[in-house]
Amino acid sequence: MINNQLLNPQSIAVIGGSDDLTKPGGKILQNIVASFKGAIYVTNLKSPDVQGQKTFSCVEDIPAKVDLAVLAVAAKFCLGAVKTLAIQKGTKAFIIISAGFGEESEEGARVEQEIVDVINSVGGCLIGPNCIGMMNSVHHSVFTAPIPDLQDEGADFISASGATAVFILEAGMPLGLKFNSVYSVGNSAQIGVEDILEYLDETFDYERSSRIKLLYMESIKDAAKLLKHARSLNKKGCRIAAIKAGSSDEGSRAASSHTGAIANPDVAVDALFKKAGIVRCYGRGELATVAAVFMCKELEGKKLAIVTHAGGPAVMLTDALSGGGFNIPTLKGEKASALKEKLYDGSSVANPIDFLATGNAEQLGHIIDACENDFDEIDGMVVIFGSPGLVPVKDVYEMLHHKMQIGSKPIFPVLPSIINVKNDIEYFVSKGNVCFPDEVLFAEALIKVQNRHRDLFETDPIDVVDAIAGIVAQNKDGYLAPEVVSEVLALAGIPFVEEVVVTQEDELENVANKIGFPVVIKVVGPVHKSDVGGVVLDIDNMDRLTKEYQRLMDIQGAQGVLIQPMVSGIELFLGAKYEEGFGHVVLCGLGGIFVEVMGDVSSGLAPLCKQEALGMIKALKGYDILKGVRGVDGVSIDGFVDVIVKFSNMLTYTPEIKEIDINPLMGNRDTIIAVDARIRVAHGWK
Amino acid sequence: MINNQLLNPQSIAVIGGSDDLTKPGGKILQNIVASFKGAIYVTNLKSPDVQGQKTFSCVEDIPAKVDLAVLAVAAKFCLGAVKTLAIQKGTKAFIIISAGFGEESEEGARVEQEIVDVINSVGGCLIGPNCIGMMNSVHHSVFTAPIPDLQDEGADFISASGATAVFILEAGMPLGLKFNSVYSVGNSAQIGVEDILEYLDETFDYERSSRIKLLYMESIKDAAKLLKHARSLNKKGCRIAAIKAGSSDEGSRAASSHTGAIANPDVAVDALFKKAGIVRCYGRGELATVAAVFMCKELEGKKLAIVTHAGGPAVMLTDALSGGGFNIPTLKGEKASALKEKLYDGSSVANPIDFLATGNAEQLGHIIDACENDFDEIDGMVVIFGSPGLVPVKDVYEMLHHKMQIGSKPIFPVLPSIINVKNDIEYFVSKGNVCFPDEVLFAEALIKVQNRHRDLFETDPIDVVDAIAGIVAQNKDGYLAPEVVSEVLALAGIPFVEEVVVTQEDELENVANKIGFPVVIKVVGPVHKSDVGGVVLDIDNMDRLTKEYQRLMDIQGAQGVLIQPMVSGIELFLGAKYEEGFGHVVLCGLGGIFVEVMGDVSSGLAPLCKQEALGMIKALKGYDILKGVRGVDGVSIDGFVDVIVKFSNMLTYTPEIKEIDINPLMGNRDTIIAVDARIRVAHGWK
Repeated sequence: MINNQLLNPQSIAVIGGSDDLTKPGGKILQNIVASFKGAIYVTNLKSPDVQGQKTFSCVEDIPAKVDLAVLAVAAKFCLGAVKTLAIQKGTKAFIIISAGFGEESEEGARVEQEIVDVINSVGGCLIGPNCIGMMNSVHHSVFTAPIPDLQDEGADFISASGATAVFILEAGMPLGLKFNSVYSVGNSAQIGVEDILEYLDETFDYERSSRIKLLYMESIKDAAKLLKHARSLNKKGCRIAAIKAGSSDEGSRAASSHTGAIANPDVAVDALFKKAGIVRCYGRGELATVAAVFMCKELEGKKLAIVTHAGGPAVMLTDALSGGGFNIPTLKGEKASALKEKLYDGSSVANPIDFLATGNAEQLGHIIDACENDFDEIDGMVVIFGSPGLVPVKDVYEMLHHKMQIGSKPIFPVLPSIINVKNDIEYFVSKGNVCFPDEVLFAEALIKVQNRHRDLFETDPIDVVDAIAGIVAQNKDGYLAPEVVSEVLALAGIPFVEEVVVTQEDELENVANKIGFPVVIKVVGPVHKSDVGGVVLDIDNMDRLTKEYQRLMDIQGAQGVLIQPMVSGIELFLGAKYEEGFGHVVLCGLGGIFVEVMGDVSSGLAPLCKQEALGMIKALKGYDILKGVRGVDGVSIDGFVDVIVKFSNMLTYTPEIKEIDINPLMGNRDTIIAVDARIRVAHGWK
Repeated sequence: MINNQLLNPQSIAVIGGSDDLTKPGGKILQNIVASFKGAIYVTNLKSPDVQGQKTFSCVEDIPAKVDLAVLAVAAKFCLGAVKTLAIQKGTKAFIIISAGFGEESEEGARVEQEIVDVINSVGGCLIGPNCIGMMNSVHHSVFTAPIPDLQDEGADFISASGATAVFILEAGMPLGLKFNSVYSVGNSAQIGVEDILEYLDETFDYERSSRIKLLYMESIKDAAKLLKHARSLNKKGCRIAAIKAGSSDEGSRAASSHTGAIANPDVAVDALFKKAGIVRCYGRGELATVAAVFMCKELEGKKLAIVTHAGGPAVMLTDALSGGGFNIPTLKGEKASALKEKLYDGSSVANPIDFLATGNAEQLGHIIDACENDFDEIDGMVVIFGSPGLVPVKDVYEMLHHKMQIGSKPIFPVLPSIINVKNDIEYFVSKGNVCFPDEVLFAEALIKVQNRHRDLFETDPIDVVDAIAGIVAQNKDGYLAPEVVSEVLALAGIPFVEEVVVTQEDELENVANKIGFPVVIKVVGPVHKSDVGGVVLDIDNMDRLTKEYQRLMDIQGAQGVLIQPMVSGIELFLGAKYEEGFGHVVLCGLGGIFVEVMGDVSSGLAPLCKQEALGMIKALKGYDILKGVRGVDGVSIDGFVDVIVKFSNMLTYTPEIKEIDINPLMGNRDTIIAVDARIRVAHGWK
């Protein structure tokens, strides 16, 4: 587990520090010397001093306690150095940037484990091996460039890939993205992405901790830990965005070859991120843009003013935002007219507020003031201001900065002229601001941020599940028998259609009277019932029932006939699959072609509360069908929610259920009832 | 129409040239002086010389013929200057950057028209007013920065918004995007976006013309011209990408306030772009990225090798590309092993080909050679190469450049380290290459480019439409009577279900025999037939037919009963709407909830050929239902294609048909038949 020696060491030893700045051992020493205020010890076999630092020829010679050791020597020297440091020098924190361990060979993996064992034995922590290192405001123990601004309000960024971390820094810095800490976990021999997030959660300080967390992962190794601490951080006011690369089959194969990532089913990743309130990103630029949105004041609501001196970008931004559910409300009335008075002729305040190519800083100030104070219908502003290259726009950016400081509504600055006013943009960013060069990429990020799951509901407590667990435990691996399935669903509180198996013709009348016409009958025995004509729907009288019964019993292999009431309504689907580490991923939708052809399915991670279940139903494209459309009745939405909640709660306590499908689940205005279901149980892994 | 004097003048007069480089008149003169080799005449009221150029105090004083005049004086002075130039100085080309015309007032619009009239009277051409100007390799007559590389292979870029043009240049230049010409059309008083495209088409030179066209528009003023010339240019080997901003209702309102754009229905724009083979973009960065893809060799096929020294970006790229229908085929066998031999231990050649952080230029050369020569399963390569900041990577970029020059397969360079190796990237770009900083944004652009409509089919010729046109011409504005609708569809060759209206009970048996059971009957007279129980489906015997006939005739207002055969199959939808300028936008899909709830509709612009109709059908999410799924028969796809083609061809010759819906169109394995249809005709505008 991460400790204080790693984050705030009094002394750092660089094992293998070098004069050669094109080598990791040279560059990391340079970065540490430039950043760290405490004692630095350097070991180097050949030179008595490097980069102006006196060196020691071996670790043993270091004359003092070492809090943090940074190892930049060949893999084969690492174990020895770690032992000496851990046992003789009291070192409790290690960063090993060297490669050549588990990622390369079995022997490497063995040594890696031995190093972990040594570090564990002294209660120490390890970042790496095979990583670029880590940096925070105390020390920059990375061998790479660039070093971003490191400050409390910046993002905590944890990456499973070192090069990707570098490229994400490079994508973010031009946007003004600040960082608080950057961790590259490499092989995650001891500490992985989830562990660092856990630490950030458990040590969260409402006064001082960063409220932005960024993750790059190629596999989720501890889904439960990620879920728990992401949710907890979110509830503490943090905003989290993450890339989980390897979302496609081909990408997953690529990730496996890159970091040995175990494939995570993407639907499970999606469900987990949703439940954790994590904004899922798919690219570096997207992650950086989302993070830059995080750095702005939180936008409450979806009504924006677009303030611009150039029409085109405002039109494209309006298209993008309104496509994502935002409003750009028309501004009119006295206050709008008063604002227009302050602008040049030809300006428009209708929103977008266009104050023309000749618009100046003072006018921008008036516009922002009006949006801040006069227009309650505005929740925030996007200001687009570039330059055709005639005059500097520093005064405009000064005004923008000033208003962003004093206002209460968020202002998002879109500054497109990355060439014409490069210096002015750099000046604006140097004041601590972020900026967005492309209005459409900004809009896409803002939409993702606004649409993330912000209400992280608790699941309703659940009562009798012991009985279900007991039944499941008694059954062998494989599919449960139909009567056991009914029993399980009944215990879970999910109505299951009544069904009676008849084997004697003289029982028919009694059964029919009990169930009530119309009924459905199915031959019992043959596997492919439909193919042998063994299913008859909608039988509405005794005469026809008797005839069809006789016909079905004549089918080869018939052992009896199952009789069910004919349930009318809309065919629904409810299923779940157990994903190791994640738990049950629940899928719901309309049945039949809606699931199979249209792929109209919603997912969630069990257990689901009512709000989550309702969210899943509303996310279906066919939601209007469930509400009732074209004169056809819909289904009881409350009833469907209730079934999903009960279904998912039951699953949480029965990890032995690996697959379960209720298909079809029939729904009408009054009731939601399972007509057919299957459950596959396994007591081990699969 | 654009002329040679505009593009290749021998002399340019700058009306209102100035010393003040923060003013348009100063900056544009500076840009012209820096670029133009011919004679330059400058007018200025106050100074005898500006920027080292002798000036004339009025246009009359210019002592020679002027080919091109660039006006940077206040709007009120423009008309006089234009008159003098056109009549006395033989000027045939004008660029008016001044604002204050039609975009500002009615008086401005009047003067603008007068200027156009004068220019038209001498057969001249006009760019503007209210624009940033234009530039090509001969002269840079713009008052803005930046000035990009202008060269034959670059893009021809036409923009309806000046500031947006500037911002698009700024977005494109860091990617290495080159330009051949840039036109800002401003108010398009004489020449609009479509007119310039027409000129580029009509003067297209297979040897010298640029093959890349980029457009920014807020409204399509002449859809037919755009379609014709975009198609023609595409057939000549050009690639065209365009932003049509104002795609949403709110964006359309914003565009109208910006450039007075007339709203174009977005479905019509989509259909037109598809038919024209134009890649539709929605943002500046996206347009620039698509244009950069255009500048690379054309990729034939969808099988790519990803070559990288960093795993993470390769995984994200694999995700993005495979999500867009590309393959990243696994490479194996002898040749793969031979390649692996040439790389460092731990490299992977499985594809992504990862040659590690330590990978060098020579190894990159081997990999590219292998992909070029040894792996037939590879159509092109994406090379990802950045830097953690230790060593320069110029040698790697040199190798990349060299291989891109000599190879036949396209190579797309993703260079993420925009900070660490900024100079090396600039060097690479200076060699004439493009580069992509973000692999996912690159992938999205490549997917768009690859999925554009490349096969621009001709419509099949069409025979008898005069009869239809005749019928339509005879009818008044409004909905056609049901029997006229049947007649029109029959003439078009679209089968319409047989229907007979019976008013005497004794006719029933004859009609039933003719049509054949089962039949559908509908009461004639009452408007809301279903609400009064006036529709009965699936009547399969004479007895029931008689009884139901009697019941229907007893309904208040009943004038008769319509009898149709009961058609079984899948409910389809086919409709069209006439959009002024665009013609008929045809929509097809599955009927009922698929159209109304799921929004599963494909669009195309009439007339449609077989390939286009098939493309529309295949683009439906419910396509599998049409093919037949879950044991339910599909429909005759050929039949559906045939109906769509006939339908769209008929419409091309009957612009009076403003709206037409065949709903439902019933389909089964054997036939596609219209069951109900309505047609609205108008002889004027609406």
